[in-house]
Amino acid sequence: AEDPQVRAWAATCATCHGTNGASATGIPAIAGLDSERAYTLLKEFKEGTRPATVMHQHAKGYTDEELKSLAAYFSRQRP
Amino acid sequence: AEDPQVRAWAATCATCHGTNGASATGIPAIAGLDSERAYTLLKEFKEGTRPATVMHQHAKGYTDEELKSLAAYFSRQRP
Repeated sequence: AEDPQVRAWAATCATCHGTNGASATGIPAIAGLDSERAYTLLKEFKEGTRPATVMHQHAKGYTDEELKSLAAYFSRQRP
Repeated sequence: AEDPQVRAWAATCATCHGTNGASATGIPAIAGLDSERAYTLLKEFKEGTRPATVMHQHAKGYTDEELKSLAAYFSRQRP
């Protein structure tokens, strides 16, 4: 089963990315995204090399390990 | 009018704290909370001195100035 702490973090992404990351809006879906790809994106947001409105702050709040666990979590969700 | 960047950050709090922080669940409402009080809480989450499930990561993502602007934003919202 998924780690409850990771699930708690992941739940806060739902506002924009949809439940379990299956976005129904213009905002990118993250459910089923390759975990390497997701981790790279999160790191770029964290380092500010990828433009964003809110993602810089969100990504900065997590350690690299925590970002890896989130990327892996969403890669296991059904788009 | 409110700074659009602050409003974008604040919108991501709605998942748990309700639209504009007017929570309808067990999770604390933050709309109309005194901004000094809100800032103190956010700093405690940021420094990890206040227990949390997701707030440590959220608060860590913002600079102190950004946390102050969020605390002020929510203090101006109607509970």
